[in-house]
Amino acid sequence: MKGFQIFNRASTAITNRATPSKLLIVLTFGAAGGAFLAISDDSPFRSLTAGESGNDGGKKKKLVVLGTGWGGTTFLKNLKTSAYDVHVVSPHNYFTFTPLLPSVTNGTVEARSIVEPIRNIVRNKPYNVEFKEAECYRIDPVNKKVYCRSIQNLGHGENEFALDYDVLVIAMGARVNTFNTPGVEEHAHFLKEVDDAQKLRRSIIDCYERASLPTISDEEKKRIMHFVVVGGGPTGVEYAAELHDFASQDLASLYPSLKDYLKITLLEAGNHILPMFHKKVTDFANEKFQKDQIDVKTGSMVVKVSDKDISTKNRATGQIEAIPYGVVLWSTGIATRPVIAEFMEKIGQAGKRVMATDEWLKVQGCDDVYALGDCASIAQRKALEDAAAIMKTVDKNNAGAVDVGDFKEFVKDIYERYPQVRKYLEKNKLKNFESLLRNAQGDSQKKIDIEALKKALSEVDSQVSFLPPTAQVASQQGKYLAACFNKAGRCEMKPEGPFRFQESGGRYPFHPFSYKHSGQFAPLGGEQAAVQFPGDWVSIGHASQGLWYTVYASKLVTWRTKVLVVSDWFRRFTFGRDSSHL
Amino acid sequence: MKGFQIFNRASTAITNRATPSKLLIVLTFGAAGGAFLAISDDSPFRSLTAGESGNDGGKKKKLVVLGTGWGGTTFLKNLKTSAYDVHVVSPHNYFTFTPLLPSVTNGTVEARSIVEPIRNIVRNKPYNVEFKEAECYRIDPVNKKVYCRSIQNLGHGENEFALDYDVLVIAMGARVNTFNTPGVEEHAHFLKEVDDAQKLRRSIIDCYERASLPTISDEEKKRIMHFVVVGGGPTGVEYAAELHDFASQDLASLYPSLKDYLKITLLEAGNHILPMFHKKVTDFANEKFQKDQIDVKTGSMVVKVSDKDISTKNRATGQIEAIPYGVVLWSTGIATRPVIAEFMEKIGQAGKRVMATDEWLKVQGCDDVYALGDCASIAQRKALEDAAAIMKTVDKNNAGAVDVGDFKEFVKDIYERYPQVRKYLEKNKLKNFESLLRNAQGDSQKKIDIEALKKALSEVDSQVSFLPPTAQVASQQGKYLAACFNKAGRCEMKPEGPFRFQESGGRYPFHPFSYKHSGQFAPLGGEQAAVQFPGDWVSIGHASQGLWYTVYASKLVTWRTKVLVVSDWFRRFTFGRDSSHL
Repeated sequence: MKGFQIFNRASTAITNRATPSKLLIVLTFGAAGGAFLAISDDSPFRSLTAGESGNDGGKKKKLVVLGTGWGGTTFLKNLKTSAYDVHVVSPHNYFTFTPLLPSVTNGTVEARSIVEPIRNIVRNKPYNVEFKEAECYRIDPVNKKVYCRSIQNLGHGENEFALDYDVLVIAMGARVNTFNTPGVEEHAHFLKEVDDAQKLRRSIIDCYERASLPTISDEEKKRIMHFVVVGGGPTGVEYAAELHDFASQDLASLYPSLKDYLKITLLEAGNHILPMFHKKVTDFANEKFQKDQIDVKTGSMVVKVSDKDISTKNRATGQIEAIPYGVVLWSTGIATRPVIAEFMEKIGQAGKRVMATDEWLKVQGCDDVYALGDCASIAQRKALEDAAAIMKTVDKNNAGAVDVGDFKEFVKDIYERYPQVRKYLEKNKLKNFESLLRNAQGDSQKKIDIEALKKALSEVDSQVSFLPPTAQVASQQGKYLAACFNKAGRCEMKPEGPFRFQESGGRYPFHPFSYKHSGQFAPLGGEQAAVQFPGDWVSIGHASQGLWYTVYASKLVTWRTKVLVVSDWFRRFTFGRDSSHL
Repeated sequence: MKGFQIFNRASTAITNRATPSKLLIVLTFGAAGGAFLAISDDSPFRSLTAGESGNDGGKKKKLVVLGTGWGGTTFLKNLKTSAYDVHVVSPHNYFTFTPLLPSVTNGTVEARSIVEPIRNIVRNKPYNVEFKEAECYRIDPVNKKVYCRSIQNLGHGENEFALDYDVLVIAMGARVNTFNTPGVEEHAHFLKEVDDAQKLRRSIIDCYERASLPTISDEEKKRIMHFVVVGGGPTGVEYAAELHDFASQDLASLYPSLKDYLKITLLEAGNHILPMFHKKVTDFANEKFQKDQIDVKTGSMVVKVSDKDISTKNRATGQIEAIPYGVVLWSTGIATRPVIAEFMEKIGQAGKRVMATDEWLKVQGCDDVYALGDCASIAQRKALEDAAAIMKTVDKNNAGAVDVGDFKEFVKDIYERYPQVRKYLEKNKLKNFESLLRNAQGDSQKKIDIEALKKALSEVDSQVSFLPPTAQVASQQGKYLAACFNKAGRCEMKPEGPFRFQESGGRYPFHPFSYKHSGQFAPLGGEQAAVQFPGDWVSIGHASQGLWYTVYASKLVTWRTKVLVVSDWFRRFTFGRDSSHL
């Protein structure tokens, strides 16, 4: 483990130096290291551009990546620089193609087909990489260390270790949000990992086998065969639909005496299932589920889960009802992991709902740390906050007021730095930024002063929104961040980002992250799906399910998983789903 | 569960009648039942022939089958009579194609590909069938009941239940023989079930991940990466070979730093690995393993297993050595399950090494109970014991001595009833039974008296041997027993079995079970295998591995498993084995 020793020595040397901030600095790395200019201020790129020194044989920077989900894996897959020694820490030594977890649960797809060992993914990359099957339980941004523990219970001081980092990428995802509902942790199933899917699958088969025993009363059979899904989002809806297909297409003929006992219930606290979809989709799903005898209960909040009952509160009437169940799946959204919450306190983000990064995915209030995927959220800079800086930039002569035309030079930068401007223009059917200014200006003869600019920008910021915690977002962020790392050297010399209004430092090296939504699926069972494309273009039915197959097959990370999943689908079409208790 | 109530009532009615024995009896089953003649004595068929009454609308007999391994499943698959209500009790709701377990362990084949749900197998059979996922823990041959407990921990009196039977088929297999070696149960892996294979697989990956942690010392790494296989039989040898392939072909490139720490050791207490094979095979395997750096230690008896060390005793020197290990697989043979041992005590078989059945698979000392596969062994009737009966039959005139030619009429029956006779003739290159008699007779002029016959038969019985506890034997027995059940009515009217020398009751209804050995494989890794056909015809190499693929693909029980396993092989050839910790 020579590499590891070098790493230790190097990182000790590096972490001992002072942390530079808000100034132009020159960093020198040892004898062999080159000297590089790096723009600091709030720039996310200090660590990146400095890291290029690895190219010329000097000590490489230590890049630690936490997590191998969508964000972490896409980042690792796209990272193509030799400037780093990469250490990956994750409790799973594989990446999971999570959109197919509901399929694994019902045996449509094999668990092994949707995973890919991380070591396979990072093989033959230009960077050195070491993987550690462990869980990070503490991040120390002051000493630049992460503390990890093995997921195997090793004892004898072998279980825990610390890693130094020069650059840290946090992609640890989120935990399931139980809203502190009593009994959920103990009794409910989740659906975030392959393990979860396998456990859930076994529990369903367990129920069928248990209900087949001669000792079970009729009433107990009814309880055992009642499967409850909590949460009417895409995952909950897809699972309920797939479970219905599994039960009616495969299990019904194998357990004919239990057919009449089966019941599937979908509980949703809000007023609609699939709230993020167009009303057409919600209506279709409701109708389909009614036909399939899946009982959809909206406005139904779960207040307690015991080993045999799930207690719900009707939000309209306040009535509390205890429903006996056999298996309950909890799929209601996500919350911050404890390790991230503790880290947020250290970096001054205490009390925030989710860890905030800037538009370049750098964690706010912390140097050299990036975060992507479900564990963080981009805090989009409000345009209004920068009104004075923008005015100062445009008003070159310090006249106190400028013509609308004077903004022309900076419009592209404004659009890029504050994407909410464009969204606002689109929403309000305004032609361009100038139209917005003219509206604020009132009189077309008047010049634009700071007040008019503020008035224009104040409305714009209403369009700032959070990105959804989806695989699509995480993987685009992973790809984006890797690209930044890859081109750090080049972009530092020739920045490609927008103009830096707040500072007088020219341009940002990189474009900020920009999410391109390509649509969302909601498989509804019976080989039907709904898909909603940007612009609320909706398609529902068998063709959409066909599209679902096509898209998911093409999105699988490796050729191996592609072939495996597609052949799993063929197997299922040919032989049905397996009901063995495996 | 109406069927179950009827079953209970009917079985109570049936089990209350007196047990007839050693006489010609007439059984009548209720109003609708027909009357059948059934020859009793030690006949295994009383229950079968009487069972035919189910055909004409009467109460069907209750057939309970314990176990869904090779014996039980082949029996159920081939049972084609509507005369029974069949209840199957097994802790696994699926059949496992056990010869491919070593492949599952190393990811060459997917676990789900080698299992088939029992409910699928018995679907569309002419008999009624109910499956119970439970474990039989007591057999009561007096009251004809089996006591079972669910494999799920249900509590509240739901966990245990009893089933009455009219006919019982025991096919519960055997447990692993630990020879009471301390620590084996706690620390060693077994390889009898799919669960075992999955656990073993995870443990290997665990070791690789653990050894990759920065906290592990070099010495500890060596220990963790030492995989020990105890038992040089076909399973142990195949596992060691497959593990070597997995490690060298797939894991070596993913965990390059661990390549030099890997060590595989095969411990065998005897003098040779693969002792049941021809010397050519053993020699080839030894050579191949030496080349592959698999350390084969023969004459090495395991005396203790702790959590980190396995202690062996050199049988030649008596020296005891403690070897540090990461994973140990225990694969040394089988022993009787406690439930069977308890049952054997009840039926007067206490102290026997294994439960004895007659040549028709009926358990000795117990009516209406059959046993097949690893849980029982056929106690071949000794010819010598029947010498007087044979003499009495042949010596029609009670002359005290007969001509050699007088045996002619009964030679075929003797061959069938005492297959050891033929084996003896073959081994000693004798032309036929008459040659044997003539040899015993000494003088060709003399007639054969009882002493001469005894002399002839006494040597013959040395050829009596036990069948090996293999899938091949169990499945042939299952098929055979099902055929007996299927043709019970016909064969009772028109018996097809050999002449009954001991009694004066004509012929046995069925031919006794006769095992047809079709050869045995020993896969040796690197796409090479050894195969030994009857007559010690041996083939070793890549062609044999090809044959292995062909034979195993064709032997898989259903089309589904055939296609799945073959496509798994293609997947493996194309993409290698998966190293995810699943």
